[in-house]
Amino acid sequence: MDVSPFAPKSFPEMPPVKGFDMAVKASGIRYKDRDDLWVLRGQPGTQIAGVFTRSLMPGAPVVWSRRALLAPNDPELPRVIVVNSGNANVFTGRSGDKAAELTANVARKVFDVDAKAVMLASTGVIGEPLDVAKIVRAMPDMKKSMTEDLWEASARAIMTTDTYAKGATATAKIGDTEVRINGIAKGSGMIAPDMATMLAFIATDANISQAALQTILSGFTALTFNAITVDSDTSTSDTVLLAASCAAKHAVMTDPHDSALNDFKNALLKVMLGLSHQIIKDGEGATKFIAIEVNGAVSDDSARTIAMAIGNSPLVKTAIAGEDANWGRIVMAIGKSGEPANPEKLSISMGPHLLAERGELARGYTEADGAAYMKRDHLEIKVDIGLGGGSYTAWTCDLTHRYIDINADYRS
Amino acid sequence: MDVSPFAPKSFPEMPPVKGFDMAVKASGIRYKDRDDLWVLRGQPGTQIAGVFTRSLMPGAPVVWSRRALLAPNDPELPRVIVVNSGNANVFTGRSGDKAAELTANVARKVFDVDAKAVMLASTGVIGEPLDVAKIVRAMPDMKKSMTEDLWEASARAIMTTDTYAKGATATAKIGDTEVRINGIAKGSGMIAPDMATMLAFIATDANISQAALQTILSGFTALTFNAITVDSDTSTSDTVLLAASCAAKHAVMTDPHDSALNDFKNALLKVMLGLSHQIIKDGEGATKFIAIEVNGAVSDDSARTIAMAIGNSPLVKTAIAGEDANWGRIVMAIGKSGEPANPEKLSISMGPHLLAERGELARGYTEADGAAYMKRDHLEIKVDIGLGGGSYTAWTCDLTHRYIDINADYRS
Repeated sequence: MDVSPFAPKSFPEMPPVKGFDMAVKASGIRYKDRDDLWVLRGQPGTQIAGVFTRSLMPGAPVVWSRRALLAPNDPELPRVIVVNSGNANVFTGRSGDKAAELTANVARKVFDVDAKAVMLASTGVIGEPLDVAKIVRAMPDMKKSMTEDLWEASARAIMTTDTYAKGATATAKIGDTEVRINGIAKGSGMIAPDMATMLAFIATDANISQAALQTILSGFTALTFNAITVDSDTSTSDTVLLAASCAAKHAVMTDPHDSALNDFKNALLKVMLGLSHQIIKDGEGATKFIAIEVNGAVSDDSARTIAMAIGNSPLVKTAIAGEDANWGRIVMAIGKSGEPANPEKLSISMGPHLLAERGELARGYTEADGAAYMKRDHLEIKVDIGLGGGSYTAWTCDLTHRYIDINADYRS
Repeated sequence: MDVSPFAPKSFPEMPPVKGFDMAVKASGIRYKDRDDLWVLRGQPGTQIAGVFTRSLMPGAPVVWSRRALLAPNDPELPRVIVVNSGNANVFTGRSGDKAAELTANVARKVFDVDAKAVMLASTGVIGEPLDVAKIVRAMPDMKKSMTEDLWEASARAIMTTDTYAKGATATAKIGDTEVRINGIAKGSGMIAPDMATMLAFIATDANISQAALQTILSGFTALTFNAITVDSDTSTSDTVLLAASCAAKHAVMTDPHDSALNDFKNALLKVMLGLSHQIIKDGEGATKFIAIEVNGAVSDDSARTIAMAIGNSPLVKTAIAGEDANWGRIVMAIGKSGEPANPEKLSISMGPHLLAERGELARGYTEADGAAYMKRDHLEIKVDIGLGGGSYTAWTCDLTHRYIDINADYRS
C-alpha cells in the first residue's frame, strides 16, 4: 500500500506514562504476522472517560464499553482496555455480544480485573463473526509481556487501512507537578462528524476525577475528532477513551473548570488536535490537508454545519484534488447546507487570496494566484458569512483516485 | 469524453407536441460550435408549473423564474422558456441579475411576449459573468428558425458534462382525447435530493390549469427528480418546468385529483421517472445503476432519509464500483442516518439474495452468490427496517475513478 505523502518521518518519541503498561500480539484475527491485539492496563484507581459513535447501529464493543464506562468498579483493581483490529464485531448478532462478553471475561481472569469495567474497542470488517478464541489464546502471553514503553507498537497494532502509525505526546504542569499525556489513534476512511472508523486512546498520569475527565473529553472532542471528515461516512465503532492513572502526586482535580487545569487542558487539546490532523492526513487517498474556517455565521452550530457541508462535498474535494480554486463549488456547498447565508454578504478566501466578496468575484483576484496557491499540500479555505459571530473550523482532505482504489477493494 | 455505458443507442422518437415550437443556436457562451441556447415557445394560454433548487444560494435565473411563475401573464400572449448551457449565472452579483433581466427583455422584444412571464434556466460554470450579449445576438435568428420537431437537438443544447441527450415521451388519454407528453433533461453531477445541476423541461398539449399542474408536478418530483442522487451535492440552478399548451380539445382540468387525469398522471410519472433514471445512468463516471428500496421504516420520510443515506454514502458507492456485496457498509449508512432502526429487526437483500437478517449474516447466503449478482449493471438494494409501514425508493450510481477524473478537471 502506498504511504500517505503526509506520513511523518518517524513516530514521535513517546516516553512511558506513569501507571500504565501494555502489550501487543499478532493473534491472527485477520492479518497475517501483524500485531492486531492491544491491551492497555491502568493501575488501580485509573479513571476512564469515553466518547462513542452516534451511529444507531453500534458494534457490540461500543455497546459493551458504554455500559462499562458507567459500571461501578473496584478502586483496588486495575483497569484494562482491550482493542483488536481486523474485525469490527458489528452486525454479528448475539454471537457478537457474546464475543464482547467473552473478551471481557478472559481479561478478568488473566489480568485480575473487574470484567464489567473492561473497556473494549474493535475495528475492521463489519458483519463477519469475530473469532474470539484467538483473543482468548493470545491474552495469557500478553500478560507476560506487559511493559511501559510500547506506544509505537501499540499504535501499529490498532491500524486497519492506515498507512502510518499515529501518536502524539505532551507534558503539562498541574500545580508544581509535571504530568504526561500520550495518545494514539487510527483512521482512515469513514471519518466524519460524530466519530468515524476512528479509535483514539489517550493516557495521562494526571489525578483527575472521572466526571471532570468526561467533561473535558466531551468538550474537546467537538473541536477535534468531531471536526474532521474524510468522506462523510460515520462508523459503527468509533471510540475515544481518555484514561487517567492518577499516579501524579498533585491533589485530585474534580472541577473541570479549575484554572489549575489550564495547562493540562491546553496540552490535551494539542494532543487531540494532533491526532485528528494525523487522521485526516492519512485519509484514504489524501494528497491535500484542508482547514475550513467559517466565521460570521449566525451561531457556532450554524458555522459547523456550513464547514461540514464544504468539507463533505465531493465536488469541493475533487476540485481541490485537481488543484482548482473552484470557489463556485464552495458557494454551492454553503447553499445546500440549509444555514442562513446571503450571497451579498459572503466572502471566500483561499489562504491569503480573497476570491469572492459581496456576491461576485473579488477585484484584484486572478486565477493565476489561485492556481499557484492550490499547488500547496496544506490549504486553508476561509468563509465569512457576514451575518453574525458564529465560527468553527473543520478539517478534511481531498477526494482522489486512491480513495476509490482503497474502498472498491477493501474486503478482497 | 467517454460515453456512459448506459447511453441508449439512439434518442427516442419524439413527435411534436401541439402548441409548442422551439429553436436552438450555438451562441458561443462557453462551448465552441455546439448549440448552447434553447428557446421553447408555448402558444397563448400555455400554463407553466415549476420546481426549483432548495439551495439558499440560487442562481439569478432561478430567482427570476420563481418570480415569473407567479407573475400574472396575458393569456393572449405566448410563453417562452429560454435556457442556456455553459454558464450557470450563479454568484455573479448584480451583473447576474441584470443578465437575467436583459435575457427576458430581449425575449419580449423578439417573441412579443410578456417579459415578466419569461422563464429562464442556466447551467454550467458558477461565478463567472454570463456574456448576455451573445444571447441577445442569437435570439432574432432563433425566432426565424422556430419549428415543432426539434426535441433531440433541444436535449443536446442544454447538456453540460452529460455524455448523452436525455428524452422521454408518452401519450395518454384525457377523456377521449389523446394528449402527448415530451420531456428532456440534463444531469449529471451535483445530482442530489432537492434537485441538482439538473434541468428538466416537460411539455404537454393537455388542457390543465396552472394550479392543478403545479400540484401534480410537485408531488411527482418528490418521487422522481428528488429521489435520485449522484454525489449528494445540490446545485444552485436546479429547475423542473412542466408546460401545458392546453391545445388538446378536452375540457380544462382544474382538479389534480380528478380520476379523468389518472392516465395522464401515469404517463407523466413514467416520463419523469424515465428522465430521472437517465440522469443517474449518466451520473459522472457511473458504471452501475442502483435502486435502493427501503420498507418497514417508521414513516415514508424516515424511509427516504435512510434510502438517501445509503445512496449518498461514498463507502457504499465505492464498494459497488468494486462489485463487492458489502452489506456492512449498508448497515453503517443506516446507522448514520439517525432514523429509528434496530439491528435485530433489520434485513438486507441484493436483488434475489437475502444477505442479512435479524442482526447477522443470513443463513444460506454465500459470498459467491453476492459476488455473481454484483457483476450486473442494474442492481437492487432492498432494506427492510422491520419497524413500520414507511417506504421509499431512491436511485443512485456507483462512485468511480471517472467521477474524480471529470470533477478534478471540470473547469480546465
